Amino acid sequence: MKDKKMNLKVRVEKTFKDLFPLNRSLTGKGTEATFKYLKDHFLAKAELKSLKSGTKVFDWIVPEEWNVSDAYVLNGNSEKIIDFKDNNLHVISYSDSVDKVVDKKELLKHLHTLPKYPNRIPYRTSYYQKDWGFCCSQKVLDSKSFFGPFKVHIDSNHNKNGKLSWLECVKHGKTYDEILISAYCCHPSLANDNLSGIVLAVLLFEYLSTLETKFTYRLVIAPETIGAISFLSQAKTNLIKGGMILSSVAGPDNISIKDGFNKEHFVNQAAHLALKKCVGKEYLTYPFVPNGSDERQYCAPGVDLPIASIMRSKYHEYPEYHTSLDNLDFITSQGLLGGYTALRKAIEVIEKNCIPKVTVLCEPQLGLRGLYPNLSSKINSDDKDIMMNFIAYCDGSKTILEIAEVIEVPVWELFIVYDLLNEQGLVEHKENI
Amino acid sequence: MKDKKMNLKVRVEKTFKDLFPLNRSLTGKGTEATFKYLKDHFLAKAELKSLKSGTKVFDWIVPEEWNVSDAYVLNGNSEKIIDFKDNNLHVISYSDSVDKVVDKKELLKHLHTLPKYPNRIPYRTSYYQKDWGFCCSQKVLDSKSFFGPFKVHIDSNHNKNGKLSWLECVKHGKTYDEILISAYCCHPSLANDNLSGIVLAVLLFEYLSTLETKFTYRLVIAPETIGAISFLSQAKTNLIKGGMILSSVAGPDNISIKDGFNKEHFVNQAAHLALKKCVGKEYLTYPFVPNGSDERQYCAPGVDLPIASIMRSKYHEYPEYHTSLDNLDFITSQGLLGGYTALRKAIEVIEKNCIPKVTVLCEPQLGLRGLYPNLSSKINSDDKDIMMNFIAYCDGSKTILEIAEVIEVPVWELFIVYDLLNEQGLVEHKENI
Amino acid sequence: MKDKKMNLKVRVEKTFKDLFPLNRSLTGKGTEATFKYLKDHFLAKAELKSLKSGTKVFDWIVPEEWNVSDAYVLNGNSEKIIDFKDNNLHVISYSDSVDKVVDKKELLKHLHTLPKYPNRIPYRTSYYQKDWGFCCSQKVLDSKSFFGPFKVHIDSNHNKNGKLSWLECVKHGKTYDEILISAYCCHPSLANDNLSGIVLAVLLFEYLSTLETKFTYRLVIAPETIGAISFLSQAKTNLIKGGMILSSVAGPDNISIKDGFNKEHFVNQAAHLALKKCVGKEYLTYPFVPNGSDERQYCAPGVDLPIASIMRSKYHEYPEYHTSLDNLDFITSQGLLGGYTALRKAIEVIEKNCIPKVTVLCEPQLGLRGLYPNLSSKINSDDKDIMMNFIAYCDGSKTILEIAEVIEVPVWELFIVYDLLNEQGLVEHKENI
Repeated sequence: MKDKKMNLKVRVEKTFKDLFPLNRSLTGKGTEATFKYLKDHFLAKAELKSLKSGTKVFDWIVPEEWNVSDAYVLNGNSEKIIDFKDNNLHVISYSDSVDKVVDKKELLKHLHTLPKYPNRIPYRTSYYQKDWGFCCSQKVLDSKSFFGPFKVHIDSNHNKNGKLSWLECVKHGKTYDEILISAYCCHPSLANDNLSGIVLAVLLFEYLSTLETKFTYRLVIAPETIGAISFLSQAKTNLIKGGMILSSVAGPDNISIKDGFNKEHFVNQAAHLALKKCVGKEYLTYPFVPNGSDERQYCAPGVDLPIASIMRSKYHEYPEYHTSLDNLDFITSQGLLGGYTALRKAIEVIEKNCIPKVTVLCEPQLGLRGLYPNLSSKINSDDKDIMMNFIAYCDGSKTILEIAEVIEVPVWELFIVYDLLNEQGLVEHKENI
Repeated sequence: MKDKKMNLKVRVEKTFKDLFPLNRSLTGKGTEATFKYLKDHFLAKAELKSLKSGTKVFDWIVPEEWNVSDAYVLNGNSEKIIDFKDNNLHVISYSDSVDKVVDKKELLKHLHTLPKYPNRIPYRTSYYQKDWGFCCSQKVLDSKSFFGPFKVHIDSNHNKNGKLSWLECVKHGKTYDEILISAYCCHPSLANDNLSGIVLAVLLFEYLSTLETKFTYRLVIAPETIGAISFLSQAKTNLIKGGMILSSVAGPDNISIKDGFNKEHFVNQAAHLALKKCVGKEYLTYPFVPNGSDERQYCAPGVDLPIASIMRSKYHEYPEYHTSLDNLDFITSQGLLGGYTALRKAIEVIEKNCIPKVTVLCEPQLGLRGLYPNLSSKINSDDKDIMMNFIAYCDGSKTILEIAEVIEVPVWELFIVYDLLNEQGLVEHKENI
Repeated sequence: MKDKKMNLKVRVEKTFKDLFPLNRSLTGKGTEATFKYLKDHFLAKAELKSLKSGTKVFDWIVPEEWNVSDAYVLNGNSEKIIDFKDNNLHVISYSDSVDKVVDKKELLKHLHTLPKYPNRIPYRTSYYQKDWGFCCSQKVLDSKSFFGPFKVHIDSNHNKNGKLSWLECVKHGKTYDEILISAYCCHPSLANDNLSGIVLAVLLFEYLSTLETKFTYRLVIAPETIGAISFLSQAKTNLIKGGMILSSVAGPDNISIKDGFNKEHFVNQAAHLALKKCVGKEYLTYPFVPNGSDERQYCAPGVDLPIASIMRSKYHEYPEYHTSLDNLDFITSQGLLGGYTALRKAIEVIEKNCIPKVTVLCEPQLGLRGLYPNLSSKINSDDKDIMMNFIAYCDGSKTILEIAEVIEVPVWELFIVYDLLNEQGLVEHKENI
């Protein structure tokens, strides 16, 4: 067990290291290479799906495929003061090609820095407005080397005949009812947001593949927004009963949940119960708001999928967010594996939860089944009380989670009670949730 | 604008002065003259409706038409110590005729005063029990001139072939759905309760006539209770979606609302929002109770019209209520015009409220329509967040008022957001409320 | 009235004295004798029902009939140190026969005491596990006389061809809708739990027989658990609209209620209102939990009868519970008669409660019926306000109990108002509850 954990830790760290440098975006080679790596190292059965550039999906159009092969800025001495090969944040995502000499004033219009954090390169995109642009640290801009005239060079390509891809993997359960596990993959060298979510998702799915499950699980790793929209345009969403977004899960802070649209939903509750069990009460809860990540799509009116988000150092909440400091030094494999343990616990709740219904009228004769203390003096045992109390609510109208809430008993104890009673044929589950 | 306000002020004051002296009651010449004045000066299109005396309306019978031409009391010296011509509160409304000499003991059985307020004449009625009677100040009763034998004279007429009238005016909107504006007119020389309500109602209706509205608005000015019942007996109440009673709206106190039966109703909410906007948080709220004014009829079981009441110095709540001190000195035109401004704001809410529904699945591409900041670094603007948040609740199940409550944004901002999105075809309203 | 109370007191005390010594159990002669006594002295019309031993009822099997004729323990000197004839708690209920000589070690395996309460004999049963056993005070066990070898003798009989009986009595009302009054009778010489419940139940039923009632009332006196289950197996439970369990009702403590499954149910509310009226606010309320007494059966999923429990010194809550100190010294006739008064009040609420509906549209003309002060100056009388307020909620959607809650008027006043309005034909009740 210890060994296995060790192996996991090693694998997580290797994956972080291998995937961090790839230049991911909505489309392009960095993203495709990431998918190939995940298939090769974790999920051989995963399937690559794609839509052609220009395809209309709901209110959106699949963008052109974008690739960049080189990009730099030379100063008046022809010294490279900004180089895409050093850090792929240096180029704005979806930047146009450019190759000309510009003065400082012109360059500054296309150059983004973070004056408050002079050492960091910001992360910027311009997906839907054609422009060229660089990002660099304020320190570079303030240095002696920063003098013109500047040679700006970006060798990028927007391919109208390209495609947008995403990775899907299905683990079949006893029913068609699906739980969605979703992570977004469009960020280049940013470690917590959201390389970490991708790695946790594939680890969790690898684990799921070893189980016999009630639910069918579907993994989706796609570029944010347009990727989720593309997936939804193809998905049988009526089968999806709930899901989780894994986002920013390896930072230094405590695990947190962002509630879904319906916070009473069993997936949401399962996540809370798992975190309470694994982390204690210190975990943070963010209320549902329809901004953030792909919950904007999954929870949109008419889509209405109940999705909770699991995070550690939530986007917007840590100062390294969307800068070059969200790097491999910012995250830890322990952080990620803590989330992994909690999510396995959440899966346990999701799988074991059901709507129990007692099979007999009136009180069952527990004594006949060895479930009742034989001498009435011992009647007051807590276990018997919990069992009787549980049975009294097994009227086919409540889930085990809901009964746990009403009778104020930890759900983990009720799962054991349910199994005991179910073995005796006294309680059955009514139907799938 | 200033000028127009000035004109309004002058008109209000002239109307107060012209209508105050008329001897209004359930029926009769004073009431009819009031209606004629309102038609002539404000609402030429208003229609006079009536039912004949003796008509059965629900549990009631339309009373005989009552008029009084003269009434006085002479003392032992034949001096007029009480004279109807000085103040029409001196005669009990619906008093029988009388012409005889009585001693003090007999007179006191028919004479009403307010010992606690010796300078005031009380207001009394005896609509449904035949009797004769006078009201006067306690001061008169305590004066040296008050000695018998007394000659009591009331020349009044109960006409079995008379009628009960009320005024109705309709302002057609795009739909048949009606909003009712109601005021009662049966009180003689009492200024706040309810000459003020009548004047505010016609002013508001004059304003409404200049608008293109979604709702149809119906004004009803009728004697209290039996007038409202008569109106209801003829009305298509299924078309009335909600309404407001204007009562006692020009006194010196802060504006107040008495909630209707269903305080979540949009008319009720609109009134609250308008007052919050115009008056601040100082306005008073009275809970619904089924006594008071014509809400007893409009909110009766089986009638069930959601009606809020707007007031300034609410009936029963000011000591001048139902006495001769509820006169032109008690009220102000500014008081009334403050209510006028608030009601126009309430109408704005009523008209602009709807059940919005997003027209696309998933997040709309706001950037394409110039509704999204182009550089992702500016994503966090409050306006965009409000817009996204609003869209997320445009699922066709909630009114804009309800969404404003949920996302804690002033409804006035959401009206602007709705218009912006509606122009782009991204949000439509589902159906009439 | 005083006299009648005196008679009641005398009868209660005689009944306590006559019935206390009988050796009641799930079955057998003591229980049958109790039933005969109740028929002879209170309810001649009551009917004895029974099921044969071995009958399958839901998840249970009717046990063999059990009787015990003699039981004792002799010490090494052949002195009777434990004798069933002294106190029938000395033998475990449903004990097997035994007749042998045993040493101390062996005897202790079959001997139950309460070390914490050395003077008390505990009450123990072994209904469904064949065993023999005695109970005695710790004092006996600690005394010098307690030395072996011991002769243990129990002469008991388990009859496979026996039966389990219960007593039912029906008082017909205007409708078939039933209210169940239930008490359990399986405890031998234990006074509060539950000889008191049995006596209160028959007294209450005797009273009910003198009334014309809307509901049909059904009394069930049966052994706990298996008796209630047997009754339910034969009952038309769809006719039972609600009920009360009378349990432990003559102890020294304040009256208490244990809420039923649905605490908003009118029987539950009636019990609360009656106690508030009769006892004041000091009475205790226990929340519903599905253990305790026969509410486990009546409130089981699929049975779902709304049952409240009325108690005075609730089971488990007093230290004398299930010991020889729960005897005639522990209870009082006054205690029981206090509960009797409260229950009569509860019956009044149950009978008078209904769903009132106003028969006219708009406000009824109360003046025409002498229900309205004739001079408008007296309008503000509280009675008129209550009447108007009541009428406003008589929309056929609420019971009088619910209206009382909403308008915050004692239900007893609304019953009077309802009668007044009902006599005038202004309010009717909609249908049976």
